[in-house]
Amino acid sequence: MPNKDTEALPDLQFEREQLLEEQVIASFDGAPDDRTRYLLQSLVHHLHGFVREVRLTSREWDTAIMFLTEVGHITTDWRQEFILLSDVLGISMQTIGVNSPSSASTTEATVFGPFFVSDAPLIELGGDIGEGGKGEPCWVSGSVRGPDGTPVRNARIEVWEADDDGMYDVQRDGGQTYGRAHLFSDDAGEYRFWGLTPTPYPIPHDGPVGRLLEMVDRSPYRASHLHFMVTAEDYRPLVTHIFVDGDPYLATDSVFGVKESLVKTFVHHPAGTPTPDGREIPTSWSEVRFDIVLASLA
Amino acid sequence: MPNKDTEALPDLQFEREQLLEEQVIASFDGAPDDRTRYLLQSLVHHLHGFVREVRLTSREWDTAIMFLTEVGHITTDWRQEFILLSDVLGISMQTIGVNSPSSASTTEATVFGPFFVSDAPLIELGGDIGEGGKGEPCWVSGSVRGPDGTPVRNARIEVWEADDDGMYDVQRDGGQTYGRAHLFSDDAGEYRFWGLTPTPYPIPHDGPVGRLLEMVDRSPYRASHLHFMVTAEDYRPLVTHIFVDGDPYLATDSVFGVKESLVKTFVHHPAGTPTPDGREIPTSWSEVRFDIVLASLA
Repeated sequence: MPNKDTEALPDLQFEREQLLEEQVIASFDGAPDDRTRYLLQSLVHHLHGFVREVRLTSREWDTAIMFLTEVGHITTDWRQEFILLSDVLGISMQTIGVNSPSSASTTEATVFGPFFVSDAPLIELGGDIGEGGKGEPCWVSGSVRGPDGTPVRNARIEVWEADDDGMYDVQRDGGQTYGRAHLFSDDAGEYRFWGLTPTPYPIPHDGPVGRLLEMVDRSPYRASHLHFMVTAEDYRPLVTHIFVDGDPYLATDSVFGVKESLVKTFVHHPAGTPTPDGREIPTSWSEVRFDIVLASLA
Repeated sequence: MPNKDTEALPDLQFEREQLLEEQVIASFDGAPDDRTRYLLQSLVHHLHGFVREVRLTSREWDTAIMFLTEVGHITTDWRQEFILLSDVLGISMQTIGVNSPSSASTTEATVFGPFFVSDAPLIELGGDIGEGGKGEPCWVSGSVRGPDGTPVRNARIEVWEADDDGMYDVQRDGGQTYGRAHLFSDDAGEYRFWGLTPTPYPIPHDGPVGRLLEMVDRSPYRASHLHFMVTAEDYRPLVTHIFVDGDPYLATDSVFGVKESLVKTFVHHPAGTPTPDGREIPTSWSEVRFDIVLASLA
């Protein structure tokens, strides 16, 4: 995105704009904390770059102020519209990216989301996190390993997901718990549990962020997913999802959470098909395998 | 401000961050309005540039979300903390700059501020806008001309200012009017009126923006100033201030409104000195001249 407009400016105009940007940056020179100073000076540089590049009009500036005001006014302890805004601009995902050093061999991270709770119930290996939630049963299994293939035993695996109405338990009145649990990998680093086949749902879109998406013809839907957070001694914590191959929202996930390596094949079985753990299920069910590779702590 | 950190990244990490930025930009490709698409794509490019350059941590992202939430919650119809934030980051002034094409011969623009009202009283040339406001009388005079020196007759000149408590009339209970009026230039393009010698005052600094300024050791004070808005047929409207030479806050004006060309000498006279219009004033008074050059339209 070359900065055509500012390159074409008369010298005096360019100089005045540059001088102002430098004055604002210099105004933070006295900040006692080095990191705070660096963050604010870089922010000023990038925001002024934006205003100068697009030749922001006063009316557009007014619109931005009014939009942010609305985002502020709809935000409560229960509805965080600034996080939604960060999500739909890809800022949340980029922040996760810069904090998750990439390697070709370790599992990729994705957004944490607002629906994790820290005291989800403990289940045994092979237990069911879906109980009480509506949806098709899904057998999820896999391994947890280190970058060199070493099995990671006793890894703590937190899993959480919405039901087939697209609702997490915490979004419903009544305080019931479903679609979330934690479990531990066995001595071979393996894990397995019953969840629900993930289904797509929209982020809250009845506020200013929803209006923004509508204005630019973007869908509020998230691709179907199941959340994981995996922690184990001597390894870097991993926050990620798995996504459902064939899901219609993979390419347009509203918060940019999809990574190709996290898209998994969910195999669908008709009602009556024997399950891996010998259950008899009267409905159709699915299964998916997710092998996790944790990064070592340096 | 070279982008050192991202240059030093491993290729895979750089590629993943770049790919995400490009995905987010592409998500706006379908926006029906060209300008909206351009604005959002440029905004995404600059915001992602910021996050990537500073390697924003998740904790810093949390802090930013909480700060914006506080800015939103303190903002009301009467208290616009997002505008204050824009002001102290120099964004308001930069927006004015890009919308006020520079020329060495025309008067520079500066911030509009939140204290203008559109129905200020009409005064005759030589009338008094200070009545009812506390402060030292100040005789303000000058000319309004076009870029070629042509006097501009019948230019509408709006002037407004705070009293010597640093308060505008609209900031006080009771609905009185002081420190504001409009008048028209005469056939020679000249104008004159009595105002108050401007004094410095802080922007509202009891909220999150005030805390930000304190954290970075910046003053909330604005340099003393008197607002002007000048409109005349066939000329570009001008919004500006004049500032007081010798004011202690000229170099650190909290909203970056000061332009050297707008700093004027206020001549101070002891009580009893005859005034230009033959008044007898029992106190000291000051005088200042401000010759205005409007830009032609087109």
